[in-house]
Amino acid sequence: MDRDGRSSVSEALQTASFSCPVSYVVRCSTAKEANDSNKQRYVNVNGNFIGSISEASSRSLNASVAENGCVVNVVRQKIPTKKQLVDTHRQGLIIEGGVGYRQTVVIRSYEVGPDKTATLESVMNLLQETALNHVWMSGLLSNGFGATHGMMKNNLIWVVSRMHVEVDHYPIWGEIVDIDTWVGASGKNGMRRDWLIRSQATGHVYSRGTSTWVMMNQQTRRLSKMPDEVRAEISPWFIEKHAIKEDAPEKISKLDDKAKYMNSNLKPKRSDLDMNHHVNNVKYLRWMLETIPDHVLESLQLSSIILEYRRECASSDIVQSLCEPENDGILRDMDMIEDNEINILHGFSLASEILKCGGLLGSYNQGALRYTHLLQIEGEAKNEEIVRGRTTWKKKLTTIPFSTQ
Amino acid sequence: MDRDGRSSVSEALQTASFSCPVSYVVRCSTAKEANDSNKQRYVNVNGNFIGSISEASSRSLNASVAENGCVVNVVRQKIPTKKQLVDTHRQGLIIEGGVGYRQTVVIRSYEVGPDKTATLESVMNLLQETALNHVWMSGLLSNGFGATHGMMKNNLIWVVSRMHVEVDHYPIWGEIVDIDTWVGASGKNGMRRDWLIRSQATGHVYSRGTSTWVMMNQQTRRLSKMPDEVRAEISPWFIEKHAIKEDAPEKISKLDDKAKYMNSNLKPKRSDLDMNHHVNNVKYLRWMLETIPDHVLESLQLSSIILEYRRECASSDIVQSLCEPENDGILRDMDMIEDNEINILHGFSLASEILKCGGLLGSYNQGALRYTHLLQIEGEAKNEEIVRGRTTWKKKLTTIPFSTQ
Repeated sequence: MDRDGRSSVSEALQTASFSCPVSYVVRCSTAKEANDSNKQRYVNVNGNFIGSISEASSRSLNASVAENGCVVNVVRQKIPTKKQLVDTHRQGLIIEGGVGYRQTVVIRSYEVGPDKTATLESVMNLLQETALNHVWMSGLLSNGFGATHGMMKNNLIWVVSRMHVEVDHYPIWGEIVDIDTWVGASGKNGMRRDWLIRSQATGHVYSRGTSTWVMMNQQTRRLSKMPDEVRAEISPWFIEKHAIKEDAPEKISKLDDKAKYMNSNLKPKRSDLDMNHHVNNVKYLRWMLETIPDHVLESLQLSSIILEYRRECASSDIVQSLCEPENDGILRDMDMIEDNEINILHGFSLASEILKCGGLLGSYNQGALRYTHLLQIEGEAKNEEIVRGRTTWKKKLTTIPFSTQ
Repeated sequence: MDRDGRSSVSEALQTASFSCPVSYVVRCSTAKEANDSNKQRYVNVNGNFIGSISEASSRSLNASVAENGCVVNVVRQKIPTKKQLVDTHRQGLIIEGGVGYRQTVVIRSYEVGPDKTATLESVMNLLQETALNHVWMSGLLSNGFGATHGMMKNNLIWVVSRMHVEVDHYPIWGEIVDIDTWVGASGKNGMRRDWLIRSQATGHVYSRGTSTWVMMNQQTRRLSKMPDEVRAEISPWFIEKHAIKEDAPEKISKLDDKAKYMNSNLKPKRSDLDMNHHVNNVKYLRWMLETIPDHVLESLQLSSIILEYRRECASSDIVQSLCEPENDGILRDMDMIEDNEINILHGFSLASEILKCGGLLGSYNQGALRYTHLLQIEGEAKNEEIVRGRTTWKKKLTTIPFSTQ
């Protein structure tokens, strides 16, 4: 209410879009009512108020009006309502006989780390981006996180249950990569989404990813079967191609207090929240990787990560990150130099060899270092799992065999 | 050294690129020497080893060989050696009669916050990216942070001394914006770089930025005059256009221990380092903004930020973030509700009004909230300033007047 006691549209909408990310339709009709009294048309995109158009100027805008009278989308977002084959701005293209999506991406200056290669976070961000743009191109996109129109009607959202990404080579700053993504069935009610990242210059596949998605009721927060209406929308896009062959996905055991590394009292910040008001994936990654000893992060590179999502993490949760190395020979050796002790093993200085990224590690080339991870919410009675993870680390690959095509 | 006592090229290069980001030329010749003995050609991009090419396949690659015999650039990065007018992958275009640069950008899903608008961090990242791509297009780019060939010869790097960004509207997820950037003289030895972000859909200018850059000797870390050789390279690109009119840039006072808000013991993490092995700009921003009370972050939006850079921050530094509100009436009122107390003022509930982003704040619409910031390195003897800042916060603008063009 303002001082005159009238409810202001911008106030009402803004309050709503901040405090209540769920009830899009409600906000929509609030906008409608306000429009009528204010003789203005308000533009509401996915429940997010984005601007007003005067009656005069709105006539010249390509605005589509939804059944409930809200002016949706269009002006600033322009979410397609029909399948698009090409999007020049996103540099996206429908491939795989009309069901896959390819996006060309230039690795940006702020997406790389100190070694000028893209960070794992950037890679994961690009997977999320291309997945959403795939749905965007399909004409099925209804809201920000890839829900289709049928899902919105049924009050369903996508929830990722598992993600597995392998990276052989990290693209470098300025490099142009093609990211392909496609979807397939996963059991009766789930969806699999795969990715493949390929360097345009070398033709080599740098990274592969696969993920599993299920539907959740946005209000009850319970998993849902796939309604027929939704199956009819998405199943025509399903193909049987796999980016990563996984006969029987390996099981990740649950860590407990006895884990070797533990960071506690981790608190999400405002800047860690995504469009769904949940802690974003990149923050999960950081929390996980920050438990790994510096000498590993410096001399090795992450070649594989598997994430099993168990629970959503909200901004008020306090998080614990546990990490346990796999108990093999290399790790015992690595542990010995953790406190910067110089140990003499096999007749040479181990620490200096590790620093050179060669020597001993080189001789252990067959094996890779593996860590099991757990992020959990610190509870009074018991802790609740957010995500289990497994990371595999290999010697940095500096040599990429170029194709001669 | 490997077990046979031979020095491996990949080891040597990798160690170098991690421990010593400066001596590109040295690493280049290391690669050269190794090439000769290994009968392989190694590709070295800006001191960053990126791959090897067999003698046979390298002939088919468009590789340019620098004077010192290193194979530079080309295969994966393809940094232009001549001015380009268009870059389709970057969606970049030379404008302003041949000296300015425009890049079209789609706001990505992970660049927006919980309210689905781009974060300030994303905006700042895009400014950095377009600035570098401007130099990229010019054919002058020599290394990752925008240094020209003449600068590299003189061992000089760019250092930003001041940045001022104003944001009237934050673009939303999926929105297409054009980012224009250009450069001009700043005093005798400096360069000004300006930006303008415009929505393609509405034609409105959302954001403006201006910055000042000087040159620093990479070894001595002392500021340098602009050598004639460098002036000859860059001055043809200078124009007298200003994105923000600043007659006399306002002075930002230095905060001390008496500042109202203080976060101490802040430690950079590996993931916070940029290509120069310094803490990146986004981390500075986060450290600054995290001192601001939640109720301000929630109900207001940052409309202006000025940053005055004083010193580089390295990964081993421990940082303190100080913040002081400007002592005006609004802030006193805001402070009163900080602990979620409901105060009765002017006859209505202040807290609920603030939550609605209207009411009282609306009545103070003329004034904006302002904060002075300081990031400093916690030293034993004395603290050293990294960056001073001033942020201005205004009521969230939900209404964008659309142009009728």
